[in-house]
Amino acid sequence: MLGGIEAGGTKFVLAAGRSPADIAARHVIPTGDPANTLREAADWFRAQGALASLGIASFGPVDLDPGSLTWGYITSTPKPGWRNCDIAGFFAKTLSCPVGFDTDVNAAALAEWRARGASRQASLAYVTVGTGIGGGVVAGGEIFGRPTHPEVGHIRVARHEDDGEFAGSCPYHGDCLEGLVSGPAIVARWGRRLDELQDEGTREVVAHYLGQLCLAMFSFSAVERVVMGGGVMETPGLLERVRDSFAKLDNCYLPGGVDRKIEGPALGERSGITGALVLAENALSQQDD
Amino acid sequence: MLGGIEAGGTKFVLAAGRSPADIAARHVIPTGDPANTLREAADWFRAQGALASLGIASFGPVDLDPGSLTWGYITSTPKPGWRNCDIAGFFAKTLSCPVGFDTDVNAAALAEWRARGASRQASLAYVTVGTGIGGGVVAGGEIFGRPTHPEVGHIRVARHEDDGEFAGSCPYHGDCLEGLVSGPAIVARWGRRLDELQDEGTREVVAHYLGQLCLAMFSFSAVERVVMGGGVMETPGLLERVRDSFAKLDNCYLPGGVDRKIEGPALGERSGITGALVLAENALSQQDD
Repeated sequence: MLGGIEAGGTKFVLAAGRSPADIAARHVIPTGDPANTLREAADWFRAQGALASLGIASFGPVDLDPGSLTWGYITSTPKPGWRNCDIAGFFAKTLSCPVGFDTDVNAAALAEWRARGASRQASLAYVTVGTGIGGGVVAGGEIFGRPTHPEVGHIRVARHEDDGEFAGSCPYHGDCLEGLVSGPAIVARWGRRLDELQDEGTREVVAHYLGQLCLAMFSFSAVERVVMGGGVMETPGLLERVRDSFAKLDNCYLPGGVDRKIEGPALGERSGITGALVLAENALSQQDD
Repeated sequence: MLGGIEAGGTKFVLAAGRSPADIAARHVIPTGDPANTLREAADWFRAQGALASLGIASFGPVDLDPGSLTWGYITSTPKPGWRNCDIAGFFAKTLSCPVGFDTDVNAAALAEWRARGASRQASLAYVTVGTGIGGGVVAGGEIFGRPTHPEVGHIRVARHEDDGEFAGSCPYHGDCLEGLVSGPAIVARWGRRLDELQDEGTREVVAHYLGQLCLAMFSFSAVERVVMGGGVMETPGLLERVRDSFAKLDNCYLPGGVDRKIEGPALGERSGITGALVLAENALSQQDD
């Protein structure tokens, strides 16, 4: 039995199953302080029977450097109590099994890449637009960016011509991408969630910024596909608008234009937790090597 | 003897030597139409004696996909006459030797990475700011972005508060990064080269945009180092201003802050041609496999 944790800032999704595609049991706990949250998760896994391995797909920033003394830690998060939390070490000790560890978006990218039965050459980025904005890339069958990881949410963007007022909600950067169109930024500026706003203009503005994210993702990571998940992307029609925005911004410049795709997750909401189980599987096969 | 070509839009730099670090002869020809330019280059190499292999570090966009029928071609360039030019094929036939082929910036990144005696784990981006703006990344000892390549010059950027007037000179995007601060854009907006302008304000504006390029490079490619070359970067004091601009934009957010470096090329103007010779060396060792 494999175990998986999608460790998010608001909830922990837990799963156990024989393979990433075959989840036998699933459980959700709200993210509280580390001591209680981790103990509650460990208790649930123990009730499922012995685990062969566990995969953790975590919110970040995290330490992914295998040569580092703090590998498997959540590091400089502003989330109260979680800074320098040895999440991988806790479960390795408590559950006595090999632990795979990565960012939530790297794991989701890996799961989406596998779900497409992709060739080794195929490359893909997974982007989440929700409480935060993050991204991970799989290229040549491998997660990209070792020994650190990409942090794509805080790039600067060109403002939309009808969007000059809002100063942005990012405590570090004001009107960086996350400060303009993360879920909380949208609520802060317009008073409600994007799918509750009946105003076409707001979706246009959000798509203008997310189109720039896709442009940068294609430009820097040279991926074929950007898969967009997260709560904000569930807004009806938003994905199509982001595609239009990207096409307008790119203006047929980038090579391989027709092969580039912007799409929703093949695994729906399960990209992250499936990715966690892929990490568990990888941890097991590494141990066998 | 290894041969190398740094194929640029304004000049071809040719070199021959026993190794990338040991250039015995060097020659520069202006970039004219393809037929004459390529023949002139081939004549020079023949005069140097038999080549074991040749490396070409080319302006782009280029086709780097080994499975493609047009591998080794310059593809969709707007440069008159050069579109769909089979540059690698021409030299393979004419000089009857193995040919290595990549973008100029990928080759320069490889050369800069080697020049630092870097560990396999170390990662580095090479960025050029000159006639155009481009970038290449070496991570884990490998050039990143196969089977295509990054195209970092045309991202959108947040305008500087004192720089609202200039519409940008990019024929595709107007005020994308290249349309704002490539060499020709600088001349178009201020009438002369940046190093000829004694106005501190212009350097501040240029650094504001190039700081955003570094921010995006670190964010998406998770590299430790950005090496900045090209004619515009030779402006005295500009590199320091770009560092300051990046630090202000990042505001200590990105993980691994102190380890991130923005620096000039260790190889000076020779990054590209040295990289071409590294490509030649790689082509030779691949043939031996």
